[in-house]
Amino acid sequence: MPKRYLLTPGPTEVPPEISLAGARPIIHHRSPEFRKLFAEIQEGLKIIFQTRNDCLVFASSGTGGMEAAIVNLLSPGDMALVVKGGKFGERWAEICQAYGVHVISVDVPSGEAVDPHTIENELRQDSFFKIKAVFTTLAETSTGVATDINAIGRIVRNYKAVLVVDAISGLGSCELRTDNWLADVCVAASQKGLMLPPGLAFATVSEKAWRLVEESKLPKYYWSFEKAKNVLPDNQTAFTPAISLLMSLKESLSMLRAEGLDNILDRHKRLASACRTGIIALGLQLFARHPADNVTSVKMPPGIHGETFIKRAKDVYGVSLAGGQGELKNKIFRISHLGYTDTFDVITAISCIEMVLIDLGMEGIEPGAGVRAAMHVLRKGNKARNFGL
Amino acid sequence: MPKRYLLTPGPTEVPPEISLAGARPIIHHRSPEFRKLFAEIQEGLKIIFQTRNDCLVFASSGTGGMEAAIVNLLSPGDMALVVKGGKFGERWAEICQAYGVHVISVDVPSGEAVDPHTIENELRQDSFFKIKAVFTTLAETSTGVATDINAIGRIVRNYKAVLVVDAISGLGSCELRTDNWLADVCVAASQKGLMLPPGLAFATVSEKAWRLVEESKLPKYYWSFEKAKNVLPDNQTAFTPAISLLMSLKESLSMLRAEGLDNILDRHKRLASACRTGIIALGLQLFARHPADNVTSVKMPPGIHGETFIKRAKDVYGVSLAGGQGELKNKIFRISHLGYTDTFDVITAISCIEMVLIDLGMEGIEPGAGVRAAMHVLRKGNKARNFGL
Repeated sequence: MPKRYLLTPGPTEVPPEISLAGARPIIHHRSPEFRKLFAEIQEGLKIIFQTRNDCLVFASSGTGGMEAAIVNLLSPGDMALVVKGGKFGERWAEICQAYGVHVISVDVPSGEAVDPHTIENELRQDSFFKIKAVFTTLAETSTGVATDINAIGRIVRNYKAVLVVDAISGLGSCELRTDNWLADVCVAASQKGLMLPPGLAFATVSEKAWRLVEESKLPKYYWSFEKAKNVLPDNQTAFTPAISLLMSLKESLSMLRAEGLDNILDRHKRLASACRTGIIALGLQLFARHPADNVTSVKMPPGIHGETFIKRAKDVYGVSLAGGQGELKNKIFRISHLGYTDTFDVITAISCIEMVLIDLGMEGIEPGAGVRAAMHVLRKGNKARNFGL
Repeated sequence: MPKRYLLTPGPTEVPPEISLAGARPIIHHRSPEFRKLFAEIQEGLKIIFQTRNDCLVFASSGTGGMEAAIVNLLSPGDMALVVKGGKFGERWAEICQAYGVHVISVDVPSGEAVDPHTIENELRQDSFFKIKAVFTTLAETSTGVATDINAIGRIVRNYKAVLVVDAISGLGSCELRTDNWLADVCVAASQKGLMLPPGLAFATVSEKAWRLVEESKLPKYYWSFEKAKNVLPDNQTAFTPAISLLMSLKESLSMLRAEGLDNILDRHKRLASACRTGIIALGLQLFARHPADNVTSVKMPPGIHGETFIKRAKDVYGVSLAGGQGELKNKIFRISHLGYTDTFDVITAISCIEMVLIDLGMEGIEPGAGVRAAMHVLRKGNKARNFGL
């Protein structure tokens, strides 16, 4: 019975209350019980997204939600401005291209955040208003970088284009004020801050975005926002929903509301700060220059092989960390403090990293320094919380 | 604590073993544990589908699997022959049309099965081989009708077109021999014979179908068969899979293999036969002329209002039956004996129907006649089975 610790940035650990809610007897999706469930979910989602916009729900993983945003907003030959700072920014471009949408790339060096002025320049140069949408990533999980959606929203509002945000890994862990920040479409998924297994995707749709949806000519059926909207007043989904995941989602939303969104964001901020401090105290270097609060990316120290490091953490200590993806393979590793995580998950991560590095012969590590530094941050501002009744 | 009985043709009841398997701790989908799980699932699916073809898995409900079949096989302007005998046949046509595929409809009167010769005639008249695919439905759940896929397969094999089967409600309850019957693409979903919650779709792909996939020009990303195929040898999915549902699926496939496919099909045949016999003994009339073994459709008796009937069964007796959909609303009702169902689910259904009809003032019912007739069938050929250890 080796004990395991899942510290990857999605899927994240699922609280037992949420797992068990999904194991309850299945209900029929065209029943009053389901309508009640779905109404409660709508209400809870709006709080987490901080929006009054419609929140559409799809049985799919996050990429499906991204595809849904594209096929509902755009038409063949449209232009899209895509911020590419990592794997998930690139995914926006790949899906656009698969549908014949022209992509103008805003290439951001890996580990850095986009400068909002670059977006403003591109939009200003687009004198015929051909750019229909700006695609961004709230927390680019592949690099650990956070994007300033608020600043981008204040720019995009002055143009015809809509602002689309991949909030898949960021929702419920990084600040996102959908309405205040003028994010027209925010896409999210279940296996991150919502602490569920994967299998649900979400999309919020603003009034400005609905006008684009009406004009959109890309083909769609399963992803159709309009089909979803038509049955929303009746608290229904257009096609059979992932019922057990929705039963889990109700439990998750109720747990999140009990904690309170601001407390949730504070917790993630505190954990992120402690994690970064611990990493630096270990003598390692952070990779992201504008780090997101849900994942810490760390440069692989010289002389340590990435795959060996990740494998040893898992095989010897039972701790799942994430390596780098694509061109970052073996160059970085990533620690999640996302979703169902608290004080001792950070301690676990930092102490595991120290032990593995010493095991692998890294020199210059002062034993316990990382954990000590993390604890210092974790103690600060900590207060009695409600741990039960 | 009123006890509830879900006798709708999907979602169906989920055995507790399967629900609890999905509540186990989540694993990462890029881990060796997941690869082992997915390899076992592949093996189990091939037995249930009776195929050596690739079985692709999507995080979506069944309609997503149908859309995947269309966007991977066809190109804009292609022609498709669609058998329309109910709501789900019509769905094939709707998705084709959403993607600019021309539909040649084979309209089948509601409650009847398609005559395979009609399909042969259409294909024979297509002298320029413009028809790329024939879309059919194994068990048309909206009418309770079974299609003779075997006969259609022997026709379509002689043409360039591929045979695509919506086996969503039929897989694991109605006979389907994917390879023997030359069904090129079979689409299924989790919430029917596989006894899982909704949220997974499947598609088998034959060699003949893969050749069409190579030519296909409809836009796709999330549904891409090629992306799924590329990572299949590594026991991976292209995008984050619905991990908890896959953990449940492994349990389901192991339960189904323990029972044995032939025993499963025999059980459904016996339950269907008992249900139909009970319905006739109650003085009611079957709706389907070629009934499927997973659902029994019954004409609503004169003087009984459909919605009142369904509501009373649920509100007073806790039994969820299904009404008619679309133009069949209030004209039929449907009883599922699909998936996790056995002897006493049929007895429950027939006795509930009798009680509700008497409650609603229907005359001419001989009390107990339906159940007695059903029991007669259920006893016949019954033998000791393995009910545990």
